[in-house]
Amino acid sequence: MPDVMPLQPPLPADAAALPFLPALYVAWADGDLTAQELDALREKIQAAPGLTPDSRAALEQWLQPDAPPSAQALQTLLEKIRTAAPKLAPGQRASLADLGLDLSTAPASPETQAALEAIEDALGVVGSEAARELLDEAAEEAPPAAEGPWVRTAELEEFLDGELRPLRRQIRELLQQPLFGFEYGLSKEQQRERVLSQLLELGAQGLGALSYPTEYGGEADSGKFAAAFETLAYGDISLVIKYGVQFGLFGGAIRMLGTARHHDRHLRRAGTVELPGCFAMTELGHGSNVADIETTAVYDAATGEIVVNTPADSAHKEYIGNAAAHGRLAVVFAQLEVGGQGYGVHAVLVPIRNDDGSTAAGVRIEDCGEKEGLNGVDNGRLWFDHVRVPRENLLNRFGDISPEGEYVSPIASPSKRFFTMIGALVAGRVSIALAAVTVMKTGLTIAVRYGAQRRQFGPAGSAEIRILDYRTHQRRLMPRVAEAYALHFAVRRLAERFALGLEEESREVEALAAGLKAYATWANLDALQECRECCGGQGYMAVNRLPSLKADTDIFCTFEGDNTVLMQLLVKALLSDYKRQFEDMRPFTLLKYLGGRAAAAVGEPSPLAARTTDSEHLRSASFQLEALRRREARLLDSVARRLRHRIQRGMDSFQAFNDCQDHVLSTGRASVERYALERFQEAVEGMEPGANREELDRLRALYGLHAIERDAAWFLEAGMITGSKSRAIRAEVNALCREVRLQAEQLVTAWGVPEGLLPPIAKQA
Amino acid sequence: MPDVMPLQPPLPADAAALPFLPALYVAWADGDLTAQELDALREKIQAAPGLTPDSRAALEQWLQPDAPPSAQALQTLLEKIRTAAPKLAPGQRASLADLGLDLSTAPASPETQAALEAIEDALGVVGSEAARELLDEAAEEAPPAAEGPWVRTAELEEFLDGELRPLRRQIRELLQQPLFGFEYGLSKEQQRERVLSQLLELGAQGLGALSYPTEYGGEADSGKFAAAFETLAYGDISLVIKYGVQFGLFGGAIRMLGTARHHDRHLRRAGTVELPGCFAMTELGHGSNVADIETTAVYDAATGEIVVNTPADSAHKEYIGNAAAHGRLAVVFAQLEVGGQGYGVHAVLVPIRNDDGSTAAGVRIEDCGEKEGLNGVDNGRLWFDHVRVPRENLLNRFGDISPEGEYVSPIASPSKRFFTMIGALVAGRVSIALAAVTVMKTGLTIAVRYGAQRRQFGPAGSAEIRILDYRTHQRRLMPRVAEAYALHFAVRRLAERFALGLEEESREVEALAAGLKAYATWANLDALQECRECCGGQGYMAVNRLPSLKADTDIFCTFEGDNTVLMQLLVKALLSDYKRQFEDMRPFTLLKYLGGRAAAAVGEPSPLAARTTDSEHLRSASFQLEALRRREARLLDSVARRLRHRIQRGMDSFQAFNDCQDHVLSTGRASVERYALERFQEAVEGMEPGANREELDRLRALYGLHAIERDAAWFLEAGMITGSKSRAIRAEVNALCREVRLQAEQLVTAWGVPEGLLPPIAKQA
Repeated sequence: MPDVMPLQPPLPADAAALPFLPALYVAWADGDLTAQELDALREKIQAAPGLTPDSRAALEQWLQPDAPPSAQALQTLLEKIRTAAPKLAPGQRASLADLGLDLSTAPASPETQAALEAIEDALGVVGSEAARELLDEAAEEAPPAAEGPWVRTAELEEFLDGELRPLRRQIRELLQQPLFGFEYGLSKEQQRERVLSQLLELGAQGLGALSYPTEYGGEADSGKFAAAFETLAYGDISLVIKYGVQFGLFGGAIRMLGTARHHDRHLRRAGTVELPGCFAMTELGHGSNVADIETTAVYDAATGEIVVNTPADSAHKEYIGNAAAHGRLAVVFAQLEVGGQGYGVHAVLVPIRNDDGSTAAGVRIEDCGEKEGLNGVDNGRLWFDHVRVPRENLLNRFGDISPEGEYVSPIASPSKRFFTMIGALVAGRVSIALAAVTVMKTGLTIAVRYGAQRRQFGPAGSAEIRILDYRTHQRRLMPRVAEAYALHFAVRRLAERFALGLEEESREVEALAAGLKAYATWANLDALQECRECCGGQGYMAVNRLPSLKADTDIFCTFEGDNTVLMQLLVKALLSDYKRQFEDMRPFTLLKYLGGRAAAAVGEPSPLAARTTDSEHLRSASFQLEALRRREARLLDSVARRLRHRIQRGMDSFQAFNDCQDHVLSTGRASVERYALERFQEAVEGMEPGANREELDRLRALYGLHAIERDAAWFLEAGMITGSKSRAIRAEVNALCREVRLQAEQLVTAWGVPEGLLPPIAKQA
Repeated sequence: MPDVMPLQPPLPADAAALPFLPALYVAWADGDLTAQELDALREKIQAAPGLTPDSRAALEQWLQPDAPPSAQALQTLLEKIRTAAPKLAPGQRASLADLGLDLSTAPASPETQAALEAIEDALGVVGSEAARELLDEAAEEAPPAAEGPWVRTAELEEFLDGELRPLRRQIRELLQQPLFGFEYGLSKEQQRERVLSQLLELGAQGLGALSYPTEYGGEADSGKFAAAFETLAYGDISLVIKYGVQFGLFGGAIRMLGTARHHDRHLRRAGTVELPGCFAMTELGHGSNVADIETTAVYDAATGEIVVNTPADSAHKEYIGNAAAHGRLAVVFAQLEVGGQGYGVHAVLVPIRNDDGSTAAGVRIEDCGEKEGLNGVDNGRLWFDHVRVPRENLLNRFGDISPEGEYVSPIASPSKRFFTMIGALVAGRVSIALAAVTVMKTGLTIAVRYGAQRRQFGPAGSAEIRILDYRTHQRRLMPRVAEAYALHFAVRRLAERFALGLEEESREVEALAAGLKAYATWANLDALQECRECCGGQGYMAVNRLPSLKADTDIFCTFEGDNTVLMQLLVKALLSDYKRQFEDMRPFTLLKYLGGRAAAAVGEPSPLAARTTDSEHLRSASFQLEALRRREARLLDSVARRLRHRIQRGMDSFQAFNDCQDHVLSTGRASVERYALERFQEAVEGMEPGANREELDRLRALYGLHAIERDAAWFLEAGMITGSKSRAIRAEVNALCREVRLQAEQLVTAWGVPEGLLPPIAKQA
């Protein structure tokens, strides 16, 4: 802080001094020139030609390092300049020297001009910007970006909706009804009741039973069920999850693991929510490792009953949806014991509440309490104290107890039986992958629209610019818009194959479901966090939805299979060349997997392609697909070799796998990215030529190139790209982001997020 | 699903068949061998020497591809093997063939042994694991990791606490009092009242006024204030933020921008919360760009009053802490106009509520409603309708209105005056950086302790392993433990320098505060998300704190300066070689910054060092510091060259900066990482030799090497490391993670997160 008293130097009265006024102002306004810099400046001005002694004296007073002009004097000087200066023509680039000359009332000499230029140089400023700020005038507008062909939004939305568009539209309409509107600040009890009333409405409209046989009110169409789940995710995520728990997990387990006697009794009432139920698999002590759950179901041949029991506290059922408040009947997974022998995990129907809502005898229920999100779902804990149910309550499609008390099963292998038993989880993974992409679309729609309207900072003296025009902002959002498109095509293809239900594809579909669920839920969370930050303080307000989208979907990374575990499942399937049983965690069969296919797929990178850096090459699907395919094959091959090497050295296969776990996860991600890029490219190839196809091809290029850029270290290490190509890729991603930004608003609108569900900051401009 | 009926083949009765039983079981248990594989296996068994015709016939029945044994038969077979087989000695590696031979009641021939080995091979299993699983016996325990010298936790805690340990201990104790306990599921109104009562207690204990002069009840110690803020962040983050709003922003603005008349009247009452207040700077339309806020404060010379007005809706004050419920007086930032001339942003005291709590005349207040987190802070919006306050309400230390109605200021430059006016924000940034590291420590303490206790999956037939023993889990948590240590030393050093308040350091401190605030708040959020996921479903429960830690600190990336903007401030300061005014966003002075220092610091990488890959070299502080320093210098140099190039070509400097924005952000991060590694290394060097120093040096090595690994693409591109060195770095980071994991529990305990504030899942084992 200067301790000196500010002066009030008078404005130089002499016309010859006028050209120097802008320099005086800039010298002080710019903050703190050093005393030396001020001295140098003063000398330059004093040496300028054509000044009268009076001018010199007056100017001198303005440039005393130890006697700065007062704030008021400086303000007066600014007003004087603004009043005297002619307006700049739009787009005109006047330097500070030009401005000085313009102020002059007489024609200035070349010497004066030279002096002014030297002064401008000494000030070290960009003259045209200094001049413009002085005059408070708008800078030259950035030339409008070349308008590409514009996206035909409605057409694209129809294309993205696909065959099930009528169902999707029905649900979009429904979600915009008052019953489904958002409210904030409700207690968890209030949220639960709201969500239950919404669930009842879905049941009443027949949307719950879509995958059930027609005789139970359904349409026997698991594709429709998945599409409904996907579309409902535009709304409150608690509702989607409760929908999944009731109709998918609870009803689905009865449908898939039970037989006619269970279907007849329960399926219709499950579909209408007349019978709310639970899927009680996870225990406190065992989440991922379902095979080792501790709850027991022991057959008592004397009474023909199954005795369900929680033998230790770690064995209580945990996080069970519908358990804390609404569930009546639970599908309980337990270790079945018949005739003193264990037959592994089976599912048994156990009533947990009586018709009047009171807790059933022998059952203890606890509320899981407040959660990060999904507080509209009543998660609870269940303990069973030797609860007896009839033998017929065993869901007996894959394992039964005969009336004579013998265990019978059509599946000899205990391990295969186990994975069949928990196969219900695959449907859940497909659904969660779909919902994650829906939520990602919602978040990106909010952030892109806000970024396209919000302005902050701008060029000197000019209007503030839209924040989506900042490089960093584009970098944060545009690759994720491309990724959401890529994942759209990937999860839709997965859902189609799942709905087809071809036996010969089932293992591949199961592996894909695991990988895509993990990849999509991580991509969604990552995108939502960027969206939140990109919306600044607005993004933090509940009413703008990003907080609840984040909180509600955070657990997507954990439930229906922890992402880290699922990625490993995918890679195990890849290693076995899809020959082995999905989810076969039994590590000792590992050796058989290794070698074979992976090694064959690996070629050497072509040195030519490694060096090519032109834009067309970098954007081409052929380059990108080759890069992602080679990466996957190389990673897979080296994982296989590393595992084999360790096991042959005598390492426990579990330990060997753990030792390569980071490598395994990279392989899983690489595989999903290759799959997503392939599906994106297929989709583009299937489109009619025109604007939409062109724009989607650009997005495909951004997705693929960004995937390569994100893993540039690997490609460089592997010698697949050179350093200069890596730099070229970065520049090309920047260029693609800038181009995609031009159509970004249309590209997100084509996703069809219901306008009525979008928050205030995402209203269309 | 096999459609065939399962058989109940009898167990072979003949002793000669016994050695083959394990193979029979594994063949079926393993899932689904193909028919070809089963046929091959059957042929091998049939060809085995020493079998009787009866044995052959009995074994034959067990290997019919179209007639699998029943589940019950398979279970009986397993029981038979388990009963007959001798126990394996601990650590014994029996193959499947060995196990078969053990079952034999007679000594087996070498031919039988050879046949068994061929069969084991045909099954393609790891025999020792298959045998162990069959017998349900424990695998060889992994050899206990070599015990390093153990951390002396109490000593390390004391070292980390530093000089202000008494204050930190006082606050740790206080936070464990019932008044400060956590409750979940409260409405925002309940949370606000709770937090207010806690704030009053802090005020009563003299913790609010720590930075105020002694005559107003303070200790004139801004270092203590910062340490209190840092330590309070172990508790409810709403309280920390309300503490910052009331004592730091509101009281701090009065202290720093006001003069005696304001201090005398308000400071003591601010420190006791008798006078709750607001810091009303941000507007809906202007957050980062404070210079362009729209609220006006026009001096009316006729009455000697200042008229504060909200001219448009975008000009209302937004997100203002203490505004929705408790604030009485607001420090309002507005464009000051005196005598018809504008003097830029100044702060004026405006009462917003009367003594009875009713809203003051001319003021409109709105509640911001539910937020993602911090719902214990009553954020609100403020509108002013020509509200008149006396001239004396202007906080007049840096700009005043004389009784004669003239504007006077000791600072001539409007830009310098502006940055002085908003200098209060620097203290906030230092505090937020400190608090972010505290929260990061809390999150990591929870996740590390949970990971060290939670078990899931394990080697065949063995106990499940602790999840912290998984490579991936270590990879997710250990580098972040190291980062929290690095940031601890970095932000502590920043706080010390800030508290010293040396004028000649102020710009460097301000730049550092910007960079560290951005880096630390991002690092914290990133760590918390990993922690949440690493705790699985438990991490999602409110009672385990991770949800609220995440939600409450998400906004740390936005408030007190958006992180993206702050990183650019840091780089602008670096570019100017710390010569120019902090936060000088005026882009037209940019040219002067460029060139000079940056270029001089860049050398060529030594090819020798680029190829060295031994562990000692990779872990050495000298290698790591050199790498991070070179990276910073090279990035800075290339940013400078790119900016200069663009501006000289005639590009608007604002546009030029935007064009390099991604590059600028990388430079900022590189600079902070270099700074943090330097501070970490300094701290290690300052420690007594011994276990703690050794362990911290290992953490330093992990932090530095992980920083290099994370940016491996850049180092490879720049030719600073080779591909093989990059691979060696990855392996070394793995090794460091494994080593650090051994002391991880002690390392987090040394942070001294109050045990009483840790959730159930983080109780010490």
